[in-house]
Amino acid sequence: MTKKVLVLPGDGIGPEIVTQAVRVLDAVNEQFSLNIQHESALVGGAAYDETGSPLPETTLAKAKVADAILLGAVGGPKWDKLDMSVRPEKGLLGLRSNLDLFSNLRPAILYPQLADASSLKPEIVAGLDILIVRELTGGIYFGQPRGIRTLENGEREGFNTYVYNESEIRRIGRSAFEAARQRGKRVCSIDKSNVLEVTVLWKEVMEEVAKEYPDVQLSHMLVDNAAMQLVRAPKQFDVMVTGNMFGDILSDAAAMLTGSIGMLPSASLNAEGRGMYEPCHGSAPDIAGKGIANPLATILSVAMMLRYSLDAKDAADAIEAAVSKVLDLGLRTADIASKGCETVSTQAMGDAVLAAL
Amino acid sequence: MTKKVLVLPGDGIGPEIVTQAVRVLDAVNEQFSLNIQHESALVGGAAYDETGSPLPETTLAKAKVADAILLGAVGGPKWDKLDMSVRPEKGLLGLRSNLDLFSNLRPAILYPQLADASSLKPEIVAGLDILIVRELTGGIYFGQPRGIRTLENGEREGFNTYVYNESEIRRIGRSAFEAARQRGKRVCSIDKSNVLEVTVLWKEVMEEVAKEYPDVQLSHMLVDNAAMQLVRAPKQFDVMVTGNMFGDILSDAAAMLTGSIGMLPSASLNAEGRGMYEPCHGSAPDIAGKGIANPLATILSVAMMLRYSLDAKDAADAIEAAVSKVLDLGLRTADIASKGCETVSTQAMGDAVLAAL
Ligand SMILES: CC(C)[C@H](C(=O)O)[C@@H](O)C(=O)O
Ligand SMILES: CC(C)[C@H](C(=O)O)[C@@H](O)C(=O)O
Repeated sequence: MTKKVLVLPGDGIGPEIVTQAVRVLDAVNEQFSLNIQHESALVGGAAYDETGSPLPETTLAKAKVADAILLGAVGGPKWDKLDMSVRPEKGLLGLRSNLDLFSNLRPAILYPQLADASSLKPEIVAGLDILIVRELTGGIYFGQPRGIRTLENGEREGFNTYVYNESEIRRIGRSAFEAARQRGKRVCSIDKSNVLEVTVLWKEVMEEVAKEYPDVQLSHMLVDNAAMQLVRAPKQFDVMVTGNMFGDILSDAAAMLTGSIGMLPSASLNAEGRGMYEPCHGSAPDIAGKGIANPLATILSVAMMLRYSLDAKDAADAIEAAVSKVLDLGLRTADIASKGCETVSTQAMGDAVLAAL
Repeated sequence: MTKKVLVLPGDGIGPEIVTQAVRVLDAVNEQFSLNIQHESALVGGAAYDETGSPLPETTLAKAKVADAILLGAVGGPKWDKLDMSVRPEKGLLGLRSNLDLFSNLRPAILYPQLADASSLKPEIVAGLDILIVRELTGGIYFGQPRGIRTLENGEREGFNTYVYNESEIRRIGRSAFEAARQRGKRVCSIDKSNVLEVTVLWKEVMEEVAKEYPDVQLSHMLVDNAAMQLVRAPKQFDVMVTGNMFGDILSDAAAMLTGSIGMLPSASLNAEGRGMYEPCHGSAPDIAGKGIANPLATILSVAMMLRYSLDAKDAADAIEAAVSKVLDLGLRTADIASKGCETVSTQAMGDAVLAAL
């Protein structure tokens, strides 16, 4: 049976890094006879420029029938002054919400070959391997009412709504516990239950979910403390589960602990395990078009896609092994450049992974 | 003229550290003939246990007539199961809001003597000196509506409201720009303007405020990126200004970069410069009563209080010099213990600061 992958290069460095990732996808497709077909579509600023919408109907239609989606990145200063409703980010948020991709898995792993890249002391981060499970289709990102209104005194007021119901919390809780079962069997749920009612409910529902997973240990931590603990002693965590906004902040902090956010893939899954895969980093408009961006996070996103959505574990393993080999060979893009290593271009890094396959 | 200081020891290690801070206050009061009178009152869990309220009327009344307030810390597991409305934290939030202490100044400074305590590499944090200006009486902490309701389908839903109007943003903006004028003349405003409307307004108003301060440079950063940049290269910042919730998270992360959150004071000021002073750290219930807590953040909060609210700059300088001297002498409480240094108790640390004065 043919599997369909939709490729969405997006903006900034998106097209460059996706080009390399697709070469890798093509290679394993042939090598492992995976019968994968892929086509591209527009999303984000690129889609807005072409069609006036950051998520054109045709793109959404293709996304809905795809078995998996590979996304580069969206956004850039070019579109910053646009109305919120048509900004590139709305394309990404529209995909997440229309496809019900509520479970965002963001691993923060320190590659032993890149231990030096971290701004933290080696003993604090050596062997780091944590997974942040972020709720992706609810919370304050999507809560209503929202907007900017004019008050009676003539002043403007901006407002957003942070909201979660029990089923939304339960399903992301289960995602986290399932993931923890495959790993260190510990879930730390992050809330601000000393101030925010919505996270009081969050904490309660997590306690309920925990009863379904007696083999997994649940703990709770306040979000401000979690931000501190990530800096102080990140290896204390196995799986962290949290809402959309806290997850956005904490997963970026966690990714940066490794010093090599250009290496980190992510998956956004729906209830059936169909998903969208993308690098943790953004569209990096400042280096777009220069051919120096690191394609490895996107290449590793292909591996995640093969493993979680396309039932091709061997191909996923092969890609991850190839990336590791390339690092062993001392090849580095500029973002992870290091003394004694060779700094290579986006394309050369793609070549090297293909060669290692 | 007599100046009145209200002392609120609070919970956990609060009483222990405040005891030492008050000894220091008494010493400079005499030494510099400051004519300061102080009295104590209950707040937080201690107040709840005694009176059923985390912020008794008598405490609030005393706070309203005080020239400055010195607070230890509030909260602890003992009160975790209480209804939100009477939790210890409500005492703190009630003080902030009733006294209109909208401007929270949280310096993150790395003491050269404690450079080793950081989990970050020395070259990343050496000389770190940033100031986070956090809005403290608005945003999602206080927004209405809020609560947990039951939906028609029988499920519960939790909700909070993230809201700011123009004047709230303008006054905290001005606080930040005023502070920047005394420092590196750079303000970085943190928002999530690619997703949240309330922070679109935030960003706009910051641009307006910036026009009043042509000598100060304004930049903007998304909160997820800010969390990353704090880990990657914190010295790029001078003053960061942000809302209540983002400020809670980022200021704790920033404080932890120093590795010695037990050293960091904070000030919460109203429009007239009256304020409440407290350590950045919490009530640390796990070590409460053991006599090992670090009193220096609270002692340094006294220095901040003297400088900002009591017009006693010399006394403030003297305290800060005394703390620095004690560190030079190699005295450390357990949280900042280090090879070759002497680990001392809370009380012994207080003694040492007094001796150094
Ligand atoms: C681009 C932006 C809307 C997005 C988010 O905030 O979710 C990004 O920061 C991310 O984390 O994927
Ligand atoms: C105790 C808590 C309510 C408080 C806050 O969230 O503001 C604390 O974390 C702080 O930062 O002062």
